[in-house]
Parts: sequence; C-alpha cells; structure tokens
Amino acid sequence: MALIVQKYGGTSMGSTERIASVAQRVAKWARAGHQVVVVPSAMSGETNRLLGLAKELAPAKLTPDYYRELDMIAATGEQVSVGLLAIALHALGQPAVSLAGWQVPIRTTDAYTKARIEQIDDGKVRAALNAGKVVIITGFQGVDAAGNVTTLGRGGSDTSAVAVAAALGADECLIFTDVDGIYTTDPRVVPEARRMGAISFEEMLEMASLGSKVLQIRSVEFAGKYRVPVRVLSSFTPPDIDIDIEDRSGTLITFEEDEQMEHAVVSGIAFSRDEAKISVLGVPDKPGIAYQILGAVADANIEVDVIIQNVSKDGKTDLSFTVPQADLARAVDLLKEKVAPALGAADVLGDPRICKVSIVGIGMRSHVGVAAQMFRVLSEEGINIQMISTSEIKTSVVIDEKYMELAVRALHRAFDLDQPPSA
Amino acid sequence: MALIVQKYGGTSMGSTERIASVAQRVAKWARAGHQVVVVPSAMSGETNRLLGLAKELAPAKLTPDYYRELDMIAATGEQVSVGLLAIALHALGQPAVSLAGWQVPIRTTDAYTKARIEQIDDGKVRAALNAGKVVIITGFQGVDAAGNVTTLGRGGSDTSAVAVAAALGADECLIFTDVDGIYTTDPRVVPEARRMGAISFEEMLEMASLGSKVLQIRSVEFAGKYRVPVRVLSSFTPPDIDIDIEDRSGTLITFEEDEQMEHAVVSGIAFSRDEAKISVLGVPDKPGIAYQILGAVADANIEVDVIIQNVSKDGKTDLSFTVPQADLARAVDLLKEKVAPALGAADVLGDPRICKVSIVGIGMRSHVGVAAQMFRVLSEEGINIQMISTSEIKTSVVIDEKYMELAVRALHRAFDLDQPPSA
Repeated sequence: MALIVQKYGGTSMGSTERIASVAQRVAKWARAGHQVVVVPSAMSGETNRLLGLAKELAPAKLTPDYYRELDMIAATGEQVSVGLLAIALHALGQPAVSLAGWQVPIRTTDAYTKARIEQIDDGKVRAALNAGKVVIITGFQGVDAAGNVTTLGRGGSDTSAVAVAAALGADECLIFTDVDGIYTTDPRVVPEARRMGAISFEEMLEMASLGSKVLQIRSVEFAGKYRVPVRVLSSFTPPDIDIDIEDRSGTLITFEEDEQMEHAVVSGIAFSRDEAKISVLGVPDKPGIAYQILGAVADANIEVDVIIQNVSKDGKTDLSFTVPQADLARAVDLLKEKVAPALGAADVLGDPRICKVSIVGIGMRSHVGVAAQMFRVLSEEGINIQMISTSEIKTSVVIDEKYMELAVRALHRAFDLDQPPSA
Repeated sequence: MALIVQKYGGTSMGSTERIASVAQRVAKWARAGHQVVVVPSAMSGETNRLLGLAKELAPAKLTPDYYRELDMIAATGEQVSVGLLAIALHALGQPAVSLAGWQVPIRTTDAYTKARIEQIDDGKVRAALNAGKVVIITGFQGVDAAGNVTTLGRGGSDTSAVAVAAALGADECLIFTDVDGIYTTDPRVVPEARRMGAISFEEMLEMASLGSKVLQIRSVEFAGKYRVPVRVLSSFTPPDIDIDIEDRSGTLITFEEDEQMEHAVVSGIAFSRDEAKISVLGVPDKPGIAYQILGAVADANIEVDVIIQNVSKDGKTDLSFTVPQADLARAVDLLKEKVAPALGAADVLGDPRICKVSIVGIGMRSHVGVAAQMFRVLSEEGINIQMISTSEIKTSVVIDEKYMELAVRALHRAFDLDQPPSA
C-alpha cells in the first residue's frame, strides 16, 4: 500500500463525463489498497470565465484589495471541482471528502494571485485517509494568516499537488494531464519528438523555466526542495493502467542519476516565443551602467532574462537583454523617458520578433563542445544567433522568431533525440 | 448615521451591469454616512447550474456525505457574487471587503442543505466597518463546528441578512428584491393589489407560511425572534431613493401596532397551489385513528398542513388532510400499502387539483364574523369549500384549484383591499 497524490488538470475535469472518468481511475487506485489524495484543477474554461466577470467590473487602479477579491472569486472554480469529484466517487461507492485550501489548511503568504505555500497541516487529511476516504483538495489556492483566500497563480494546482505530497511524505505525486509525459521537445513542432521515461530534476527545472509548459516551474522547485518523486502521465489512458508501480507509464522526474536515466548528452529542447529583446545603444562603458539600466527595469517589477553587453568601442557600448513580451512596451517607455537621457544613451530599441531556443541535458556537464555543436547546426541552417546564454546543463540562444521551428527541428535531429537512447 | 444591512436577490445580481448598479446604490448609502453590510445572493441561474452539475453525478442513494458536497458546490455561487460586488465598489472608489460565511464566521448546525444559523461572530465585520469599509457577506451559507461549509436552503440569503442584522444590532435590514414591497395579494392574479406601507410581523409570518413568496419564512421568524426591523423594497428604483429613513418606500415589517399600521380587518390574501389533498375513507371512529394515519405520514418526513375529520356515521369516519404536492404519490402509496389495511379503511384517495386560499389580518382578532364573510363571498361565487383551517389572525380554505383566481379576486374586492386603508 502506498500513499499517492494525484493531480488532474482542467481538461481532465472538463465535463461531468470526464469527472466521472477521473473518479473511476481514482476509485481503482483506492480499491487496490492505496491511500489517495486528489488535487483537481477547475473545470477547463471556468477560471477564465470567473476572471472575465471580475475584469468587466475592475477599477482603473488595481490595488491589493482588488487582487484579494480576484482570489476570492477565482478560488471557487476548484471548490466546485472537488465537490463534484467527491460526489462522482460516492456514486461508485467510494467514500470521499473534499477540502478547500482553507479547510486543510494550506497556509500561504498574502501575496494575492501569486501567493506562496508556507505550511500545510496534514492532520485533517490523514484522519480522513485513515477513515478509508479519498481526500480531494482544491488546487491553486490556500489561506493567509489573516484568513483571506489566496491563489498561487496560473498552473498553481501543480504546485498544490507537489506541496501536499511533500507535506504527507507521499510515495509519489502523479500529475495527470492531457499529454502522456515529458517529450524531448514539443511534438507539435517536431513530430519525431520522443517521450522520456525519466528526466532528472535539474533538467526538468531548466525545461520548465525555458518554456516547456507541461509543469509549472514552481511545482518543480517544490519537488526539488522536498525531493518528491513526481510523474507526469496522461489522464486519457484506461484507468487500470499504472496502479502497479512497475507498470507506470509517463515520465518520472527523478533525483537519482542511475541506469534508469537516459545517457544522451542533450535530453530535450525547449523554446519560448514569449520574450522580447531590448537594446540600449551607445551608453558610456563605465562601471555601474548595467546596474543603472537593469536596476530600473527590475524596480518596475519586470523580469530580465538573457543579458549581453557588446565589446566597447570608443568608450561606448550596447547593452541588450530580453524581457517578457507583455512588458516590452512598458520597459522601452521607462528606459526612453528616464534612463536613457540620464546616461546619454544614443537610442533604445525594442524587438518583439525574437524567440529563445535551448538545449538541456545533464550530460553537458561531462561533455565538451556541446554548445559549439549547437552553434554549428544553426549556422548550417543559415540562422543568425543574436544572444547566447549558458549554464551548467543548458545553452540558450536568441534568434529571429521566424526560424524557431527550423532551429528546433535541426537541433532535435542533430542531437539524435528522435532515436531511442543508448543504455 | 445608521448601521444598515442590505440584501440583494439573484435577479438584482444577475449580470455585471446589474452588480454595478447595486454597487452604485450601496456606495450612495455609504457616502451618506451609513455603515453598510451587504448580503447578496448568487447571480440568478447560478445555483441551479451548480446543483445541475452535481445532479448529473449524484449517487443513487443520497447520503449526508453527498449533501455535504452539495453545499460545498452550491456555496460558491455567493462567493463569486460577494467578490464581484466588492470589485464594483472599488471601481467607484468605495472601500469594500467580502467575507464568506466561514470567514465571518456564521456558525450553523451541520444539517447540510438546510442548516440553521446558531451564532454569528461580529468582530471581523465591525472591525472592517470601523475601518470605513462596506462589508459584503455571502448569503445562504455558513460553517459548522467541524469547519464544513453548510447552506441554509432555498431563499436562505434572506435569513442570512436578517441574522447578520440581528447580530450587529442593525438599525434596519433592507431586502432589495424584484418587487417593490409586500402586496395585499399577488398583483399577477389581482391587478388592483396594493402595496402595503407596513405589515405586522405576525401577519408577515402568516403570509409567508401561506404561500407569499416574497420573503423566506425562516427569515421572518428570525426577524421576530430578534425584533429586527425589516423592509422589503425594489432594487430597480433609482439608487438615491430611500437613503433618508423618512423617505423609504417598500413595506416595513413592524413590531409596533401604532398609527403607522393599516387598520383593515383583513390585510392580505395569500394562496398556494403547492398542496394536494388526501382522504382516508371509512375508518373506524375510535381514539388513536388520527395518530395512526398522520403519525405514519410524519414518520415518512412528509409535512401535513390542513386536517379535517368528518362527522362519524355508523361508527365510521373519513379523515382528510393536505400534503405538499411533491409528496402526494409517496404518501398515498404509504397509506394504501401499510396503514389502510391495518385500519380496515375503505379507500385512500389523492387529489392534486386543489389550492389553498387564506385571508390574513391582525384585525381578525377584534372583529367577529370575518370568516363567515369569507365563506359567504365564496358561496356567492359558487365555489365549494372542501376544508377549512383557522388561527387567530388567518382563515384558510381548500378549494378546487380551477377557482383559485376567482376566489382571490372576489375576496380582495369584498374586503376592500383595492381601496387605500382608512387611517
């Protein structure tokens, strides 16, 4: 008997028929002798519907009071889901009880719409499990110290599930989703993309932060911090599958680099269209310049990703960096109005038509020349590299958006990701 | 400055436009210097949508565990409403905060779907009021001692509003609805029906229990128990109206029989199509018979209303009574299968095509012959009376359903209810 946390996304919970099918899967696990905690998302479309209503009424200035109410409203989507899933389990004769975040309670910070989980009380959950019940906990939300409802931000249900698994010391956290695992890259871009049987925690962290949208990055961080074994698998397989731990499909995020792991140098290719490039041209090349520019951007709560500084010429240099595409206009305005005049910069340019393509693999630690091979492949395809960023287990390049698919396919082939890995 | 509780029904909260209009009204009251607590219902249609989803998944046997989840699901409708109304107030520059029943907390029994309010903690509400905020509390729901979400049953938001007003010692509880007050009878049946400026608590209690659907009966009981001044008025009048207590329109439910009160003998006419008649024929006329029949019905959790027993003949008698129409088939089956054979009754007949028409007025206490006048009016219209039930301030008759409108109109005219009352 194991203690298993299962998370189901909005598509899996998208209708009463689908909820009934989730219930069947959960009931089979419970009948096989496992203790099961389920963390479902809101029914697909519901969170958007609720936020849409709020947006129609929103004040011009969005205050913390507004975000508090937004969380109050958005949290109801998951509350409906947990109740419906409990009822669907009752209909199968499986005892089950739902708990909202505040009932557990799942304590969070008070940063509305992007709260962080601080502590989970496991007493109520364990009591219900020991009474033979499946426990269904609302994803995406919690309660702050003052008793206000908070939410964790988009994709927060992944984080809820992993955090609950950590608090309970669960044997495994299964993320049931509409894909059947983590792929070497997005199969919609590269049809030859392969599902990985396992991926290391560090690679998954890079994949999630570099644009792979299967798991929310904070849930991966949580899994790492508490060493929760997480498996991503499809909710559209028959419910019998996977109950025996040996048979489980999907992709396991593992902390052990043993023979289970694939031995490819590059494990996966991530990409993102969500960034934009800003260049501040002709700034004096002296200490403190980068801080003056990037500090102002950070103060405006805009995240900066890749940064490069050109070689200096005549005491002047150019600084380029990427920001989320949604923040591009605001960042350029800010720099043009306040920063560039003070620095005597020649110009500030914004370019939304870029993308970031990254190769990820813990094999890069022990293999030299991997980045060079990446640059060669792109060069052979005639793709100009605008920016480069590296870390121990990944190399990212910023290129013209129009070459994104071409680059991803060429790299996937060049690093043999369409071939089964050598053991 | 007064402390005012305002309740808005589902129609008043039916769209974001209407919520914005409720916010305008509430903001005007707050700007006029009043402390305002608002208790809104779910957006119209929402509770039915949520219960419909639950019904699609419901188990064959409806256990308390099922009803617990039903409350968990249904309670979200009001939670969305309070958040949206708070946001609409923010947009008008009016500080406001929403509280779910469990956040107040509003403590109830654990009778899911029909819980009763036991206690309301006013600390959090008063603190927010004193901070200059409008406080918006979810209607229809609370939390039991174990921390489970409960609901109060249909129309429960009226009860929530009156209970909150009682707990806060509010100066008035205003029930904003889609009608502009309590009428002498339903204007859809009698176009000449008049709105009453005031109605005594006892009359309102009878009107509510006899079929007038403007206020939920439990809210009237609550108002009586805690002597909360309740006023029913329309949410479709301009928002400026009614802020000065002297100007308020609608109908006040009063505990003082002073000159404000109308001095009519009969104040209003209530009617209901929701009952059905059962007759148990040819039962031996001996002690305990009524108990054997009605006790069996009560044990099946079926409410019995009007009861009559015929004059005995040859040692046999007939017993007739009314039950809710929805319970008719079940009651007849029960009596035919179990009770009638044991008693040696000749037959059990069920008739769904009846209605109950009632005249209500505290003037009936001091005037004799009011019931007789009612019977004369019905007789002149050729309407046969099947059953009669009286109390100190009302007389009800059960008649053929097809005469209902005719009876209500004739009585409305005969008791001068279409004329302004003499002072």
